Amino acid sequence: MAVKLIPPADDAYNYPLLIKQLLLSAERYAGDNEIVGGNNGQRFSYAEFVERVNRLANVLTEAGIKEGDTVAVLDWDTPRYLECFFAVPMIGAVLHTVNVRLAPEQIVYTMNHAQDDLVLAHDDFLPLLAQVKDQLTTVKSYMQLTDQAQAPEAPLETIGDYEGLLAGAMTEFDFPDFDENAVATTFYTTGTTGNPKGVYFSHRQLVLHTLALASTTSMNDNMQLMQSSSVYMPITPMFHVHAWGVPYVATMMGLKQVYPGRYEPATLLKLFVSEQVSFSHCVPTILQMVLSSEQAKAIDFSGWQVLIGGSALTEGLAKAALDRGIQIYTGYGMSETCPLLSTTWLPRNAADFDTSEQVQTRVKTGKPVPLVNMRIIDTNGRFLPHDGEAMGEVVVRTPWLTQGYLHEPEKSEELWANGWMHTGDVGSIDSGYTLQIKDRIKDVIKTGGEWVSSLDIENLISQHSDIELAAVIGLPDDEWGERPHAVVTVREGATVDHDAVVQFMQNFIDDGVIEKWAVPDTIKVVDEIPRTSVGKIDKKLIRSQLQSD
Amino acid sequence: MAVKLIPPADDAYNYPLLIKQLLLSAERYAGDNEIVGGNNGQRFSYAEFVERVNRLANVLTEAGIKEGDTVAVLDWDTPRYLECFFAVPMIGAVLHTVNVRLAPEQIVYTMNHAQDDLVLAHDDFLPLLAQVKDQLTTVKSYMQLTDQAQAPEAPLETIGDYEGLLAGAMTEFDFPDFDENAVATTFYTTGTTGNPKGVYFSHRQLVLHTLALASTTSMNDNMQLMQSSSVYMPITPMFHVHAWGVPYVATMMGLKQVYPGRYEPATLLKLFVSEQVSFSHCVPTILQMVLSSEQAKAIDFSGWQVLIGGSALTEGLAKAALDRGIQIYTGYGMSETCPLLSTTWLPRNAADFDTSEQVQTRVKTGKPVPLVNMRIIDTNGRFLPHDGEAMGEVVVRTPWLTQGYLHEPEKSEELWANGWMHTGDVGSIDSGYTLQIKDRIKDVIKTGGEWVSSLDIENLISQHSDIELAAVIGLPDDEWGERPHAVVTVREGATVDHDAVVQFMQNFIDDGVIEKWAVPDTIKVVDEIPRTSVGKIDKKLIRSQLQSD
Repeated sequence: MAVKLIPPADDAYNYPLLIKQLLLSAERYAGDNEIVGGNNGQRFSYAEFVERVNRLANVLTEAGIKEGDTVAVLDWDTPRYLECFFAVPMIGAVLHTVNVRLAPEQIVYTMNHAQDDLVLAHDDFLPLLAQVKDQLTTVKSYMQLTDQAQAPEAPLETIGDYEGLLAGAMTEFDFPDFDENAVATTFYTTGTTGNPKGVYFSHRQLVLHTLALASTTSMNDNMQLMQSSSVYMPITPMFHVHAWGVPYVATMMGLKQVYPGRYEPATLLKLFVSEQVSFSHCVPTILQMVLSSEQAKAIDFSGWQVLIGGSALTEGLAKAALDRGIQIYTGYGMSETCPLLSTTWLPRNAADFDTSEQVQTRVKTGKPVPLVNMRIIDTNGRFLPHDGEAMGEVVVRTPWLTQGYLHEPEKSEELWANGWMHTGDVGSIDSGYTLQIKDRIKDVIKTGGEWVSSLDIENLISQHSDIELAAVIGLPDDEWGERPHAVVTVREGATVDHDAVVQFMQNFIDDGVIEKWAVPDTIKVVDEIPRTSVGKIDKKLIRSQLQSD
Repeated sequence: MAVKLIPPADDAYNYPLLIKQLLLSAERYAGDNEIVGGNNGQRFSYAEFVERVNRLANVLTEAGIKEGDTVAVLDWDTPRYLECFFAVPMIGAVLHTVNVRLAPEQIVYTMNHAQDDLVLAHDDFLPLLAQVKDQLTTVKSYMQLTDQAQAPEAPLETIGDYEGLLAGAMTEFDFPDFDENAVATTFYTTGTTGNPKGVYFSHRQLVLHTLALASTTSMNDNMQLMQSSSVYMPITPMFHVHAWGVPYVATMMGLKQVYPGRYEPATLLKLFVSEQVSFSHCVPTILQMVLSSEQAKAIDFSGWQVLIGGSALTEGLAKAALDRGIQIYTGYGMSETCPLLSTTWLPRNAADFDTSEQVQTRVKTGKPVPLVNMRIIDTNGRFLPHDGEAMGEVVVRTPWLTQGYLHEPEKSEELWANGWMHTGDVGSIDSGYTLQIKDRIKDVIKTGGEWVSSLDIENLISQHSDIELAAVIGLPDDEWGERPHAVVTVREGATVDHDAVVQFMQNFIDDGVIEKWAVPDTIKVVDEIPRTSVGKIDKKLIRSQLQSD
């Protein structure tokens, strides 16, 4: 009573899923497509790119990097970063994509925690490294990355500069086969508290994530994110979840790729026009920034496919983008999930949708991509129905989830329970399996056995014409477990008080939008709503402030 | 000096690649797409289809099928066959797709060799099974498949008929997780000699084959084989390499699918029109038969995407198809390879191609799909250059190759050597990595260290206006190793002899099309060229006839 197994895999038959195999089709499909660097104007054919990956592998091994070592990169988005995406894991080493936006002490923490051996760093980050190098306990050497034709003098000892080293390296490297469960990449997620947590992904996971993405990005007639004629430019940093893993997809497909360097609206727009970019992905604020820039006014954005993630796509931004001809979609995922779990899915009749339907469909977090098993559960871990109403924590299974946090067994156990990864997000799933994220589970308010989305209530309060911003949190309550409470800021020249807001909320109760119990018990007018270092509303602080009132 | 491994996979994190996971996205993407049976007019929504897969799993386990057992199916192309594609492997059993076109004694051979436990058989095949049932050494029970509303009396004892059993079964089944290397399917390849050989594929292999196919079938702007609005109808039998694995792709994508039952031109054309079929795959003779049928004259085929495989797409058929508006492409693979290895790849400027370029591009065997490592080697196993000239045996590595022939260790060793699967095909690969198959390795003529394609010479000889058909084979030669020899048949009323053909061939030598040594030493006019049971030129017989001359 056991399944019949394929006979023990002889070496001859064994074909592990390795990142190097994504390169097989790249050159074949690419034709004359190029990989373009906005940082310094470099342009490479795919043949040149593949040769550079081989050269880099030789440079790394000559620098003493062996299987199992860790190579850290601190860089903006560049073709050479893409070369690291391939060469480092392809020699069996681990690529640590360092989050260069972290505070210096956190950068040091992550580099020690990941046990980096060799560090490739852009000129912009060398001064920092020179300052902290005595605190880096595992780093053995540094390599300089420069956008200048002649590498400027480095403020710390390096083994040389990237282009110089590549120029002197052999053009071929015999990339070995090894276990597909070998760790390929690692990077750190930032929470509002505590140290960053390291996540890690294997060759197998990245290959499967790439295939699953590729299998959906072009199959929907109404949303052709990536096709062989597409021109791809990421606008989410390559250090953050491998730019959502899309560079691996674009490379496997042999697409023209544009790496913009630093994200400055003028540069992004210039590249968008000159390279005829057709597909990008970014967080909402970047798109907002780009669209509202002076230079954007004269640009025709029609046909630009943009996948939004990182935080919720608002209806306002979705409409603004559609008005400019941008095909805008939502993707959902997180650092722990490689990242993609779901994307907008336009049904066959989407062409007949009016603007409001277009917006409504695109702001939803979409349908899970192939191989993703996604459910919502209540606080007792029971599966909830897919009726678009029931709200529960989103849990997932799919072959590309981090198996835990690096060297953090307790936090890893919290992440994984009963065989499912717990996303910490609360959402509903409708009968068509479209996910709508409603809140973070730590922010959702559990009152009298019901879950109330703090975001939903904030959105409703914000519709009051005198209110600028609202934050809703839950506080302990003897009778109901928790009760919602709000703090609001008021528009200049306006006044508002608790009763006025409660009265305003009554409209939504009358219209059946919310239940009575969702109205906050207290609504407090404040001068400013506290934010975290990354600009998110600091609900933890609000909670403690209100509790100490 | 070893790669860092993902920590030992706890059960909680382990996510094997199983066929059941292809169903996750099916229902989500399908919308109101249906799965249609041309055999009996049944139409199922994807929700109904998934429920029927669950019911079938209950029926199978109630019939005593356990993990590791084998379930044989003898059927035409039907939705219930698709249900077997999923339910049988999903319960951990092996699906044996019996080649119903084999001679009865070969069917018996394969069913005993595969150790079938339960047999699902269409009414058309029950009489045969009734006849041979005493020779079937492992079969324990039979299930009737019928296209009639009331199942007719079966000529042997069965456990009931499929629809009746499904109607009485529970609607839910808890499909287990198990090792992704579990064998999912098996079937038999037919050679010209000896017993059929069994190949087998695991869950992992079928999932990866599905993802790799899905990632390329819609990404080329110029060839949209499958998109979310596509309507898929296979015209290669489901018993043969799972209809090229495409039903798994179409299901994962949630496409509308049409299963035509038996292949009769009238039925196929009726379904093509009524169901608005947009994508099919077939061998050249089927397309030829369909296009030349009386009913085809009135039909608008424009936009029909047709992938040709099994044997070479001739320029004539490619042109005829293009003239009718059919987007025709070549796929390359074999039973041993799951099957897909490569497909036509139209470059970005293909829209500007004239007819001749269109034809030339589409008759080539195309570019290898992602994850396929393909090379050509000489007789010493050395890799040959990709210059479009060098001819060598095509060898492949990719994660979806049969690990050998069932219970045939010696033949398996021949199939695999030095870590590569040997296809037995001879071809060239050009600098753009486009493969052109030239011959079977057993038919290619090795003369004076050079390889001469018997097919190439046959094609050239056939251009002589008096010649109807030519067959070229190699015979041992003391000086050159082998030398080419030809037999030809002559058109009615014409006459031709050795010298006339040699003189005709001189033109090709003068034009640089062939080298002098490629001209056959003898050209013998015969009344008839011998063929095998499946209609292929019987080169083995010709070889022995000429040798005994």
